[in-house]
Amino acid sequence: MEIKERFAERARDKSPSPIRELLKYMTIEGMISLGGGYPNPDTFAFESIDIIFRSGQSVHIEGKNLTTASQYGPSDAHAGLKSELRSWQQHKDAVSLNDDQLVVLNGSHEGLFIMSYLFLNSDDSVIVSEPTYPGALAAFKSFTQNFIQVPLDSDGMDTAALVEILAKIEMQGGPLPKFIYVIPNGHNPGGVALSDGRRKHLLRIASDYDLLVLEDDPYQLIKLDDSPLQPTLQSLDKEGRVIRLDSFSKIFAPGLRIGFASGHPEIIRQFVLFKQSSNLHTSTFIQEILMQYLSSVGHESFRDHIKKNCLLYRTNRDAMVAAVKEHLPAGISYNIPTEGMFMWFEMPEKHNAVRMMENYCEELKVILVPGGAFSSSGGCGNCMRASFSLVSPEQIGEGIRRFGEMIRKDG
Amino acid sequence: MEIKERFAERARDKSPSPIRELLKYMTIEGMISLGGGYPNPDTFAFESIDIIFRSGQSVHIEGKNLTTASQYGPSDAHAGLKSELRSWQQHKDAVSLNDDQLVVLNGSHEGLFIMSYLFLNSDDSVIVSEPTYPGALAAFKSFTQNFIQVPLDSDGMDTAALVEILAKIEMQGGPLPKFIYVIPNGHNPGGVALSDGRRKHLLRIASDYDLLVLEDDPYQLIKLDDSPLQPTLQSLDKEGRVIRLDSFSKIFAPGLRIGFASGHPEIIRQFVLFKQSSNLHTSTFIQEILMQYLSSVGHESFRDHIKKNCLLYRTNRDAMVAAVKEHLPAGISYNIPTEGMFMWFEMPEKHNAVRMMENYCEELKVILVPGGAFSSSGGCGNCMRASFSLVSPEQIGEGIRRFGEMIRKDG
Repeated sequence: MEIKERFAERARDKSPSPIRELLKYMTIEGMISLGGGYPNPDTFAFESIDIIFRSGQSVHIEGKNLTTASQYGPSDAHAGLKSELRSWQQHKDAVSLNDDQLVVLNGSHEGLFIMSYLFLNSDDSVIVSEPTYPGALAAFKSFTQNFIQVPLDSDGMDTAALVEILAKIEMQGGPLPKFIYVIPNGHNPGGVALSDGRRKHLLRIASDYDLLVLEDDPYQLIKLDDSPLQPTLQSLDKEGRVIRLDSFSKIFAPGLRIGFASGHPEIIRQFVLFKQSSNLHTSTFIQEILMQYLSSVGHESFRDHIKKNCLLYRTNRDAMVAAVKEHLPAGISYNIPTEGMFMWFEMPEKHNAVRMMENYCEELKVILVPGGAFSSSGGCGNCMRASFSLVSPEQIGEGIRRFGEMIRKDG
Repeated sequence: MEIKERFAERARDKSPSPIRELLKYMTIEGMISLGGGYPNPDTFAFESIDIIFRSGQSVHIEGKNLTTASQYGPSDAHAGLKSELRSWQQHKDAVSLNDDQLVVLNGSHEGLFIMSYLFLNSDDSVIVSEPTYPGALAAFKSFTQNFIQVPLDSDGMDTAALVEILAKIEMQGGPLPKFIYVIPNGHNPGGVALSDGRRKHLLRIASDYDLLVLEDDPYQLIKLDDSPLQPTLQSLDKEGRVIRLDSFSKIFAPGLRIGFASGHPEIIRQFVLFKQSSNLHTSTFIQEILMQYLSSVGHESFRDHIKKNCLLYRTNRDAMVAAVKEHLPAGISYNIPTEGMFMWFEMPEKHNAVRMMENYCEELKVILVPGGAFSSSGGCGNCMRASFSLVSPEQIGEGIRRFGEMIRKDG
């Protein structure tokens, strides 16, 4: 697979910092370097850091580790964290990544922007599901306004429809899209997962049409039942087409802003050059904390802790499903999510979600997000997203009851 | 001053997330929100954090503050930190910023990239000093390869030369550059400060030619003598032309990746929209830590602490200057820096710095950075940068002695 010619022009000329050329001399015995421009660690603010985690572990950072956490670091990753993340990916996805296949990001969201920077000229297009995650649309819209929509159903992105769309573009001689954007698990806002058959079909399509795939998977481990994880697109990919984004926002803490991208070394190399020129690197302080946590807690125990946290979401999901069955009128389509934090309601065409919120939100005192926010084309006007992440089961029950009333009032 | 028409096309269509429209309903009593997609704080990793600072302060973060630090936050800034930073800017620069004039970044370096994203089409140009900071060149090169060089001398960017260059461009009917990039204090690599007269002249020029100014000032507080701070360009600016970048990398710790941009509300608004679409926001965890530190240490005591740290750099600078006077042959130009971490040596034209390092680095065991790394046009081939930040006074003395030997060997 040829990668280079896919990059947008702006991303083609990037080369590593010339100062890095000098690093080869650094290890020579007796060398005095007046080269490095880093500030002196003796001036850094921290003496020591103690963190107690809810899972019971605690971490004490001082001395050499604290200096590493406080100093500038490599643009790809803190070495210790990279090693932990490679092993984490092996553990959860059975995927072996080399050192040049992983880059730590300011949250996986940064990966959406970097893909956009690297690949999207203003006349390029991206394949997205309808509906899709608005944060991804915002990132892609930083460089293009062209989207190709593929319908989403209870099995995720409709790959049969995708084939038809691509065949038509090809027949018309139009340029093919740069990549397929997929949220394989706990789709935000759709609340659906891509079925096993469609995962394989999607990769076959990508191969047939020579497309890249951007796998955005923040809800992978927010499981709401006991089924095993489905294979990731990355794990099924034999051709290096999948760039995968992993997040710690839902399984550790979102405020840290840490996630990582992994995939084809040539693409990851461009991610690293982008980091170097745009923000140098992700906070080494945050990377050290995550590294210390992962190495002290261990994979199995981390997974157990995540599972325990998922009970909260599972209880809330159950409360929402029960309330939906009890309170919503007939004719509302929805899916029962097996991962994530969202349910998506499609109402009959006559309903306008934005107007409903404007007319009844204050009176009925319930907020859902009108579907238009999740459309790349001003569609989904008759849809609503409900989140069950931040509310109690009681609030969920009452909230959905009010939503039912809102639908009835709207006629 | 008209701002909107200056933006690159890609930055013109950005609008805030449509979901934010719903925030107005959130404060209504009894409202149940199924809108927010944030993860539940009960699942977050942290129980408590204790930090001891070298300056003596200590900080304990738990409960509500820890939840804030762990959760997603606003794209512009953690509210408490923004307030601290406004007050910090007032304290050190006598500049009053409104809430809509400041945005916290993943290090001030991110501001270089954002300015580039917002303003630089591929046919636009930027004014830079020759030499200049290569990290800025890398950020600007993300979108354009066109630079207009202005010579640097012991008083900083040569504003008389700048006027000539701009007059010539105007006379030829060529498009004016988008902004002037300036490092006013402790210039990296030049080791010079912009003189008071030139600061005013630069702003007059910006006004005459209707240009924006990007003031990148990470070394402002790394003072190597007892002179008072010079007024920042921002403090002298009456027309809202200056976008200022402040860094905590040299006065707190670089590994955290935190800095901020401040300036014209219309530009800062675009910075915030960029943050929203590219990485959501700077780590709230890091923002909370900096906020807790600033509020517990107080401005005066923070300044004293920085001054104490500067003694290290001052001692090292003195050692380097003494060694330069003792060991370098005649005919080498240099400036004695009053801020920062760098000295810049211009050797006679016959010397080629890259070749010198290749020929003599291993033998003489000293590394300096060849000047070409700091040129936007392949210039500065006869220059070298020496940093005095990471080495002892003894190493500096010996390193410069070896550099002198290298120059002599090179004939």
